[in-house]
Amino acid sequence: MSQINDKIIETVENLRSRSPLTHCITNFVTINDCANAVLAIGGSPIMANEPDEAEEMVTVVNTLLINIGTLYKSQIEAMKIASQTAAKLQKAYVLDPVGIGVSKIRNDTTMELMKEAKPSIIRGNLSEIKTLAMLYGILDECTQAKGVDVADTDVINEDTLDSNVKLVESIAQKLDTTIAVSGQIDIISDGKDTYVIRNGHPMLSDITGSGCMLGCLMASYAAVTTPIMAATTAAAVMAIAGEVANQKVAYHKKGTGTFRSELMDALSLMDEKIINRYVNITKN
Amino acid sequence: MSQINDKIIETVENLRSRSPLTHCITNFVTINDCANAVLAIGGSPIMANEPDEAEEMVTVVNTLLINIGTLYKSQIEAMKIASQTAAKLQKAYVLDPVGIGVSKIRNDTTMELMKEAKPSIIRGNLSEIKTLAMLYGILDECTQAKGVDVADTDVINEDTLDSNVKLVESIAQKLDTTIAVSGQIDIISDGKDTYVIRNGHPMLSDITGSGCMLGCLMASYAAVTTPIMAATTAAAVMAIAGEVANQKVAYHKKGTGTFRSELMDALSLMDEKIINRYVNITKN
Amino acid sequence: MSQINDKIIETVENLRSRSPLTHCITNFVTINDCANAVLAIGGSPIMANEPDEAEEMVTVVNTLLINIGTLYKSQIEAMKIASQTAAKLQKAYVLDPVGIGVSKIRNDTTMELMKEAKPSIIRGNLSEIKTLAMLYGILDECTQAKGVDVADTDVINEDTLDSNVKLVESIAQKLDTTIAVSGQIDIISDGKDTYVIRNGHPMLSDITGSGCMLGCLMASYAAVTTPIMAATTAAAVMAIAGEVANQKVAYHKKGTGTFRSELMDALSLMDEKIINRYVNITKN
Repeated sequence: MSQINDKIIETVENLRSRSPLTHCITNFVTINDCANAVLAIGGSPIMANEPDEAEEMVTVVNTLLINIGTLYKSQIEAMKIASQTAAKLQKAYVLDPVGIGVSKIRNDTTMELMKEAKPSIIRGNLSEIKTLAMLYGILDECTQAKGVDVADTDVINEDTLDSNVKLVESIAQKLDTTIAVSGQIDIISDGKDTYVIRNGHPMLSDITGSGCMLGCLMASYAAVTTPIMAATTAAAVMAIAGEVANQKVAYHKKGTGTFRSELMDALSLMDEKIINRYVNITKN
Repeated sequence: MSQINDKIIETVENLRSRSPLTHCITNFVTINDCANAVLAIGGSPIMANEPDEAEEMVTVVNTLLINIGTLYKSQIEAMKIASQTAAKLQKAYVLDPVGIGVSKIRNDTTMELMKEAKPSIIRGNLSEIKTLAMLYGILDECTQAKGVDVADTDVINEDTLDSNVKLVESIAQKLDTTIAVSGQIDIISDGKDTYVIRNGHPMLSDITGSGCMLGCLMASYAAVTTPIMAATTAAAVMAIAGEVANQKVAYHKKGTGTFRSELMDALSLMDEKIINRYVNITKN
Repeated sequence: MSQINDKIIETVENLRSRSPLTHCITNFVTINDCANAVLAIGGSPIMANEPDEAEEMVTVVNTLLINIGTLYKSQIEAMKIASQTAAKLQKAYVLDPVGIGVSKIRNDTTMELMKEAKPSIIRGNLSEIKTLAMLYGILDECTQAKGVDVADTDVINEDTLDSNVKLVESIAQKLDTTIAVSGQIDIISDGKDTYVIRNGHPMLSDITGSGCMLGCLMASYAAVTTPIMAATTAAAVMAIAGEVANQKVAYHKKGTGTFRSELMDALSLMDEKIINRYVNITKN
């Protein structure tokens, strides 16, 4: 897999040299982590939620991230304008439908955004992606997620990998976009190519924001490469950073506060050497 | 006091094994700390402020936290729906009236929420709790707090402990709920039982969010035990974490940034051994 | 320059002993960092965005900060009431026009706020201050900033220092206020006195919030000294903290997560000895 490793490294380095502007319309729980994560990989974030400046924002940036983690009405308006503008200007746009399935407003907003403009990448845990598929009639039913966390029955491990790869490929084909599913094992597919990433650490679920940051990284990398490579690079980078951070934390017997700080450190120090040492990716 | 120690340890372990969902409607200053603190003790947080999903949120979660630190109109609407739903579904609900007394909207919102549904626990510093008591006519007057910080004349130390215990018991009886007062010494009473906790460290006041996180921990523990035990456990856990974090910071001559990170570490590493070594609690 | 050093130290110590209340109406990206930074230097922050309590807030605090980083309509209303109240009560007020030039609403809000009440200090990077000057007709044109970051052509280094000092002095005179420009070299002028600070580190741009925190420190120090000394003290303190934090990070080969934590540590540990060792300030 040295070819895919090289592509990931090239993408990481391209972003650092070009420092694209990423506009993030995101929740206010992890907005600070999201901005710092984009900066850590060498990007330049700009966060704003006001409908009145949404078109101008998307016009000046290179790429767009929409995360529905803490929706409110005027933010939904900004999301619609921003996604339309991204489509019109042919800029990459990542949708992170956090907590879809938990409430009607999350389902409705996601479906409305999907109608406004097709995202370049849709990122979520398996419960969220399955809920989306169900809303589109691709799946008949899905498990109720546990709040914004994945349902216990939606864990991607070696036993469930094959069937989930097929499911993700099928959803990607039907929605004609790149689907990036985060989990113990990550699955990323654009319906043609599918990558499986066996990196990461359970501690990534012990802090808030891992998923939100990942969505922002995908959007940032999408400014310098294809959606499938952007999603794959971001997923690999975040998962490797989680492993590196966990090793520091385990060695010094620290907890989740230090893990959060070490995770950001690992993102900001990510380079060819670390990627080559850690990355465990296969093309399906 | 080994009996109460054992109950605290049992509560801490029960939460870790059950990982209840806590819905937090809280301010956007410390919302990230709040989510991470709930995760650190083994819970599962979900934050949302939109009235349109408030009923659905409270329906799927185990317990509710309302913190009025940065009120805005639609959030107040969400708080009302959420507290009504918690009452209807008999779910635990913690009210943290941050900065009550500073503005009319904070006083009015607190009183309206109290009318919607009786909280299981009301948490605050002594200035906040005394202001609430004054609004209810239980006290004739109270000192003006210093913004969101406790007034200098409202410090709970050994000299003022007895009179403040009586006051807190009286307020708990009159409001028929559990009152949890945070300070140098914490006082927690449901009007029948009263616990006094001599843990904590002044550095907890050198960062923002200690009080907000404590409210969220109380709500989380309230999913697995009685209000009085939930408030007492959370207060002990946060205060002990503050002591542990301060020891790390003092040893390495660090400042408040490191303290914040060490505090989260200490919450995530809290266990029977640490509780038994540090806890200093008496039943009044 | 021992005289100015002594004044900075005096201001730092005065704030620690008096602990003034600073009301911050600011963006929700870095609001937590802002509150912790104010606490770290010994101040007492209170954050709120609701128009209904804006007048009461400004009445109880000592000083006001307005940062337009993530505007929304009701927040703009709160900003207007707060700045009017600060003017009426003659309280210091710092304006941080984040991202001015990026959107019409940021330009319009800044100009409306300037009409409501003259700020004691306006803080920004050179692109932001030049955009403001252009909106006032003081400059004919200015470079488009890169989102919320300074334009590459607006860097203040030894080559561009003299012309930029003249520009900043001229803007300060024409707007009759203190202008604080943050950059590789900081320039602070009230139109009569001008200070040039050669402290800081590029890593301050690798995290979000350095500029926002700086604005909040300026507002806090403005409660205990003149605008020009408040802006100069805050700029020196933040820049020195950046150098100290970078030394820790470089020594331990850490990244931006640790830098953020070390920066807060350095702010909280700032004292006479550190200021005298690091400060590099000249009066123009």
